[in-house]
Amino acid sequence: VIVYKMHNIVIIVATGVCHTDLYHLFEGMHKDGFPSVLGHEGAGIVESVGPGVTEFQPGDKVIPLFISQCRECRFCKNPKTNQCEKGWASGRHAMMASADSRFTCKGKKVLQFMGTSTFSQYTVMNQIAIAKIDPTAPLDKVCLLGCGICTGFGAAVNTAKVEPGSTCAVFGLGAVGLAAVMGCKSAGAKRIFAVDINPDKFEKAKVFGATDFVNPKDHDKPISQVLAEMTNGGVDYSLECVGNVTVMRSALESCVKGWGVSVLVGWTDLYDVATRPIQLIAGRTWKGSLFGGFKSKDGVPQMVKAYLDKKVKLDEFITHNMTLGQVNDAIELMKIICSVPVSKS
Amino acid sequence: VIVYKMHNIVIIVATGVCHTDLYHLFEGMHKDGFPSVLGHEGAGIVESVGPGVTEFQPGDKVIPLFISQCRECRFCKNPKTNQCEKGWASGRHAMMASADSRFTCKGKKVLQFMGTSTFSQYTVMNQIAIAKIDPTAPLDKVCLLGCGICTGFGAAVNTAKVEPGSTCAVFGLGAVGLAAVMGCKSAGAKRIFAVDINPDKFEKAKVFGATDFVNPKDHDKPISQVLAEMTNGGVDYSLECVGNVTVMRSALESCVKGWGVSVLVGWTDLYDVATRPIQLIAGRTWKGSLFGGFKSKDGVPQMVKAYLDKKVKLDEFITHNMTLGQVNDAIELMKIICSVPVSKS
Ligand SMILES: NC(=O)c1ccc[n+]([C@@H]2O[C@H](COP(=O)([O-])OP(=O)(O)OC[C@H]3O[C@@H](n4cnc5c(N)ncnc54)[C@H](O)[C@@H]3O)[C@@H](O)[C@H]2O)c1
Ligand SMILES: NC(=O)c1ccc[n+]([C@@H]2O[C@H](COP(=O)([O-])OP(=O)(O)OC[C@H]3O[C@@H](n4cnc5c(N)ncnc54)[C@H](O)[C@@H]3O)[C@@H](O)[C@H]2O)c1
Ligand SMILES: [Zn+2]
Ligand SMILES: [Zn+2]
Ligand SMILES: [Zn+2]
Ligand SMILES: [Zn+2]
Repeated sequence: VIVYKMHNIVIIVATGVCHTDLYHLFEGMHKDGFPSVLGHEGAGIVESVGPGVTEFQPGDKVIPLFISQCRECRFCKNPKTNQCEKGWASGRHAMMASADSRFTCKGKKVLQFMGTSTFSQYTVMNQIAIAKIDPTAPLDKVCLLGCGICTGFGAAVNTAKVEPGSTCAVFGLGAVGLAAVMGCKSAGAKRIFAVDINPDKFEKAKVFGATDFVNPKDHDKPISQVLAEMTNGGVDYSLECVGNVTVMRSALESCVKGWGVSVLVGWTDLYDVATRPIQLIAGRTWKGSLFGGFKSKDGVPQMVKAYLDKKVKLDEFITHNMTLGQVNDAIELMKIICSVPVSKS
Repeated sequence: VIVYKMHNIVIIVATGVCHTDLYHLFEGMHKDGFPSVLGHEGAGIVESVGPGVTEFQPGDKVIPLFISQCRECRFCKNPKTNQCEKGWASGRHAMMASADSRFTCKGKKVLQFMGTSTFSQYTVMNQIAIAKIDPTAPLDKVCLLGCGICTGFGAAVNTAKVEPGSTCAVFGLGAVGLAAVMGCKSAGAKRIFAVDINPDKFEKAKVFGATDFVNPKDHDKPISQVLAEMTNGGVDYSLECVGNVTVMRSALESCVKGWGVSVLVGWTDLYDVATRPIQLIAGRTWKGSLFGGFKSKDGVPQMVKAYLDKKVKLDEFITHNMTLGQVNDAIELMKIICSVPVSKS
């Protein structure tokens, strides 16, 4: 093992599977690099520390961060953003695999996915991309805070800045969308529309606070029109948690004119997203959210604490517990559960 | 003359020509209605008042408002928007001519453009769409506050909410763009890039506070890349004041990641505007502005006062003084000055 300056070796104890892993495999078609070790939503324990590491000791419980927080760059110093420029993605347009990998397999270099690669026993990470968390936290639960749950929850709370009494719509009810529902609820939303083409998702959405359930397949009209009719002109906030540019457009156009805010959370870099200019001129705001707008090193330990204090749910997101050896089965299972197209022409 | 309830007859004393008039004539190809009396940026005097009018008397100096402010609808009551739903445009998607016209010509109905039609001696308007202004105001100057100047100035100040010390870019230097430059300057911007394909516009832009001048025709690279290189990654705020969806995309992509805000001001309803989702996920915000976000009845008299107090410039916008009979010459002149395509395939 080569020990890198300022880097820690982390033993991965638990990891979730996020749609971004599937995107890379089946939609992006490896355009950002192959082969790589996937996974970016994990939790683990520091095994050893490299030269210059001051913040960590072996035995610390940690969550690997696919967005770093160096605390020194102009992005870290600006309260408006969490997009540190010192991370593995700096200078890159796409945000997938890192060329600066520490993995090899049979002498061949294997890329480190999103600077983390949690589908492994060990990974090596710079200390600016690791959050130390409460030593009492259960790693097999809080690993979900490494991506999906912080992403959806923060998109509602930090990016959309959902207001009490408002009406929200969440498109897509995977982990990210369910967490967005939870975020809307925690921000005091009065009505939360849960939108998914898979109606099996509605029951879970209710657990997180959704009040209304819409399956686009049940309607002939565009879903933006359906929501406008149900809400006297549209919702105050909408969040796209699918990763489909057609749904992104619908989400924007489902917002009320004047003050509606729509947030892109779903990921795709294959197509443009479009709308008519009037949709924005009429007073809608279009934003995007990466990792829920959380400054990662600050936000993740706070979310772990919120879980321990029972202010955010995590256990309810978990559908299956599997071993690392079963990771390919987990991917297959997710493909089915999510009813998401796995390849595009 | 039929006298409408709650309506005033206004003698138009002065009017400006706005690109939206040209859009309707040459780009929208009358798709929102024909024939109509154009013009929507005027100032005048109340000639007579209809039954129920309480706010106005004959002789009052006024500015007709293409966005009303009824003070009663949920939009008027919400401080986040100026998009009153009681106006002539209510229920309509497009925002051009009104079907509810008071003009006839040789027995045939002629549409009232944007509820105003200022290229005429007289017009009839509801009192929710008229602003009473300071009686000392020179109508041949303050007429510009009926559209372009409030639009550009407010887009910077109210919609983008430009912050002191920031870097801005304004695309398109017609009246709207120049007013946006003036707005950025008044909000305390440190650097203001003026972008136009017609370099004759730069001298005037300097008068309003622009510090840097960019002609896209002088560069081979995309203008977003040119601006990113000149500003260490992009501007904090950009305003599109052209009405071209390609420029709208460039304006968004000229913003810095993390916190850049781009505002659509230019008008077109012919094409979609598009970008890659990553542009928003990376932290940019896309907004639009109608009449600069000013609640019209409140904002216009305040802007008139700001002009009388020498806090905003108006005289410097005026290039020609012509008679109403010369209105077609004014349109031709604007086509040349603006170097704007007058028809699209
Ligand atoms: N911005 C970020 O920081 C960030 C972080 C993590 C994940 N993501 C992205 O968020 C998205 C969601 O991730 P996930 O892990 O929750 O995915 P998931 O596959 O578990 O869930 C997607 C859900 O969308 C539903 N869906 C599919 N097509 C739909 C349609 N047309 N209308 C409504 N619903 C539809 C599916 O049925 C499914 O329930 C992905 O695009 C992922 O890449 C973004
Ligand atoms: N949102 C609103 O409330 C509102 C109100 C008024 C006007 N508008 C719109 O604002 C826009 C500007 O109006 P105006 O009266 O100032 O127009 P204008 O025609 O006087 O000015 C347009 C300017 O854009 C420049 N231009 C053209 N193509 C360009 C390009 N590719 N890159 C850079 N610059 C380019 C022209 O040279 C010209 O200087 C129009 O689209 C108009 O319809 C919107
Ligand atoms: Zn993820
Ligand atoms: Zn940083
Ligand atoms: Zn105008
Ligand atoms: Zn109103």
